[in-house]
Amino acid sequence: MHRSLAVELPMLADREVRLNGWVHRIRDLGGIRFLVLRDRSGLAQVVVPREIDLGSINCEWVIDVTGRCRRESRAPGGIEVAARIVAAISPAELPPLDIFSRRAASEIRLDTLLDHRAVSLRIPDVLDVFRMEAVVLDAFRAFLSGEGFTEIVTPKLVVAGAEGGAAIFEVKYFDGTAYLAQSPQFYKQIMVGSGLERVFETGHAYRAEKSETSRHLTEFLSLDFEMGFIDSVQDVMRMHARLIGAVFAAVRGRCGGVLAHRGVSLPEVTEIPQLAFPEAVRILAREFGKTDGLDGDLDTDAERLICQWAARELGSELLFVTGYHEGKRPLYTMPDREHPPLTQSLDLIFRGTEITTGGQRIHGYAQLVDSIRANGLDPADYAGYLEAFRHGMPPHGGMGMGLERLVKQMLGLQNVKEACTFPRDRYRLVP
Amino acid sequence: MHRSLAVELPMLADREVRLNGWVHRIRDLGGIRFLVLRDRSGLAQVVVPREIDLGSINCEWVIDVTGRCRRESRAPGGIEVAARIVAAISPAELPPLDIFSRRAASEIRLDTLLDHRAVSLRIPDVLDVFRMEAVVLDAFRAFLSGEGFTEIVTPKLVVAGAEGGAAIFEVKYFDGTAYLAQSPQFYKQIMVGSGLERVFETGHAYRAEKSETSRHLTEFLSLDFEMGFIDSVQDVMRMHARLIGAVFAAVRGRCGGVLAHRGVSLPEVTEIPQLAFPEAVRILAREFGKTDGLDGDLDTDAERLICQWAARELGSELLFVTGYHEGKRPLYTMPDREHPPLTQSLDLIFRGTEITTGGQRIHGYAQLVDSIRANGLDPADYAGYLEAFRHGMPPHGGMGMGLERLVKQMLGLQNVKEACTFPRDRYRLVP
Repeated sequence: MHRSLAVELPMLADREVRLNGWVHRIRDLGGIRFLVLRDRSGLAQVVVPREIDLGSINCEWVIDVTGRCRRESRAPGGIEVAARIVAAISPAELPPLDIFSRRAASEIRLDTLLDHRAVSLRIPDVLDVFRMEAVVLDAFRAFLSGEGFTEIVTPKLVVAGAEGGAAIFEVKYFDGTAYLAQSPQFYKQIMVGSGLERVFETGHAYRAEKSETSRHLTEFLSLDFEMGFIDSVQDVMRMHARLIGAVFAAVRGRCGGVLAHRGVSLPEVTEIPQLAFPEAVRILAREFGKTDGLDGDLDTDAERLICQWAARELGSELLFVTGYHEGKRPLYTMPDREHPPLTQSLDLIFRGTEITTGGQRIHGYAQLVDSIRANGLDPADYAGYLEAFRHGMPPHGGMGMGLERLVKQMLGLQNVKEACTFPRDRYRLVP
Repeated sequence: MHRSLAVELPMLADREVRLNGWVHRIRDLGGIRFLVLRDRSGLAQVVVPREIDLGSINCEWVIDVTGRCRRESRAPGGIEVAARIVAAISPAELPPLDIFSRRAASEIRLDTLLDHRAVSLRIPDVLDVFRMEAVVLDAFRAFLSGEGFTEIVTPKLVVAGAEGGAAIFEVKYFDGTAYLAQSPQFYKQIMVGSGLERVFETGHAYRAEKSETSRHLTEFLSLDFEMGFIDSVQDVMRMHARLIGAVFAAVRGRCGGVLAHRGVSLPEVTEIPQLAFPEAVRILAREFGKTDGLDGDLDTDAERLICQWAARELGSELLFVTGYHEGKRPLYTMPDREHPPLTQSLDLIFRGTEITTGGQRIHGYAQLVDSIRANGLDPADYAGYLEAFRHGMPPHGGMGMGLERLVKQMLGLQNVKEACTFPRDRYRLVP
């Protein structure tokens, strides 16, 4: 007999059905047992009559249930299955965590959830985060594909870091050394120059972050786009705002239940207000008396405060801050010639945390060589990258954001690790 | 004025248009010049009258053309643009490779193409491979999403390899050591057990292959699915055959021009014939006199020959070979209890080369612990993986295939590196 899913039961009333899944919970009401079965589609209530011997079957056993589907107003969703046969597929030891408790995930320490990941992922509230992440990935790709972007795959084994700095992992590569890419920056720029013009990638990026924070992972999924033939950085921000709008709309449409259950909502986004860095500095001083941590860049506290201001004054939970200082941005950042030391750069701040970094890039070969030298680096080490610029590169720009941090902000999670199936930090490499 | 793309010109006849792109080629016919402009959509012929001074503009310059679009039967596609203004956006040095020659890519040594990747990617035949790769990725995800699979993201920084063996890269991880994942195997199994049941991933995998072959990369994009609640390995093969059919159909539909230009075709696939390993051994001896290299597994020569046989006798370019021997397959492979030492494993061979490895996996906790021990390993080192099995795992199976090798076989490329934007091998880490 064909297997049905829990979600299909309302269409199968008064029919014989077969369900496969995990035992989510069993309640014994004096012989009659209410068994909640969990499958990939959700939960189903199964009534097990006295005459069926469940043997050792208990929570997390994998079982095969055959019975009659019937309407029952007291059952969740108004439907249940009266079991005729309950067969064990795989036995299970009782899990070290409560999987069925609605409050389970929020009451368990994060380290415990991560130490027992194979079990904690089974908690519906935990798993829903990753169902949503799949929707975000799909919406990201679908929107950009519709805008003429082509997906690219670029290497993560590289010889040097695009972002510079010491936070880079070293790989023993045969008799030499490689590094793990901190971003696909150089490669997505080369791919703009390949003639694809508009490219995106959803791939891993690595940061050897020594510090433990609630918003850093050593390995994260970087969502990147890069677009050629822009008139200015405004084109990047327009595309980015519509992208965020499309992602939020997809999540509202396909994960409405998760948002409602968690009591969170996502704004409808068409445009995102912009604030130039010097203006942000003035507002932070005037409104919050904050004058430190603003040396060409916003510190995390400034990001939080400026978002408070934007929510109050502009009615927006999203804010582009533009024009960060040279020296605070990577060497490929396009300077703002009319307002030195500002740059054609942007961060997108959402609910108090920066989720995106981007901007217009230098496209002139000579200017890029100068910038590499000005950063104390040798252009010869960037030959493969510079070749794209030597042979004709259009004005271009783009952005990168971490999937896990985006989802953390969307759902109001406490820690970015909650948005990663198997997070990596300085002290965690397992499971 | 709004920019148009080359592909849009047929709809814009007799209108003023603006094109942006690279100078693909210039032919000077005594004052009148035919300039071929290349943008992300393709090529456009631009006629530049005598009175326009092109200055230094030459191949690969990025330019901005304004002019009248007109029908011209002698122009490629029957349409051209009579330029009124040609402005330089970015200058370019003459490239070290011929980009415009139709025969360019096939006549240039692969190492030269890879050494000058920022330029060689601009050769239309080279770039088309990556446009097609994007279509393969999209079709892979779309088919599986439609079958109830959920996309997952799993770590590439791990403590041990799923596949065993020495071909693993070591990463300096703060004060300790991590490794680069050789496959997402353990994690996708845990995600089946999480309750998602059906999962897929498109992520990088790493093999420290010392040997230089035409089908190995040290970094490749691994296309993986894993599905729970299977009745047998037949369910995996059925799903896999339909997946291949969907991917081929998408490429035929969306990259028909590329296939035609290269003179290759892709079969319509609904079912894929199967051949048990012992039968393959008999056929290889009988038909080809081949008796070596068949010790529980097929060597590359055997794969090539058995594909010849399948094409001739079964009329299929695709062949599942099943039932490889224990000891030749990873520790998580489900044995075939009725036919030891065979296993419930499969390889998919396509046009002479193995493109997929898969099978049914062990789902019983005790059996998996025994298998780990039988492989001389310590179950304690696999605690995070084993936890999924300890707490109830359904029968499951799946497969993994390398995107680059699949595309190599689809297009009949000589070397897998032609199907990788920036390939990595023992001696190549740049660009």
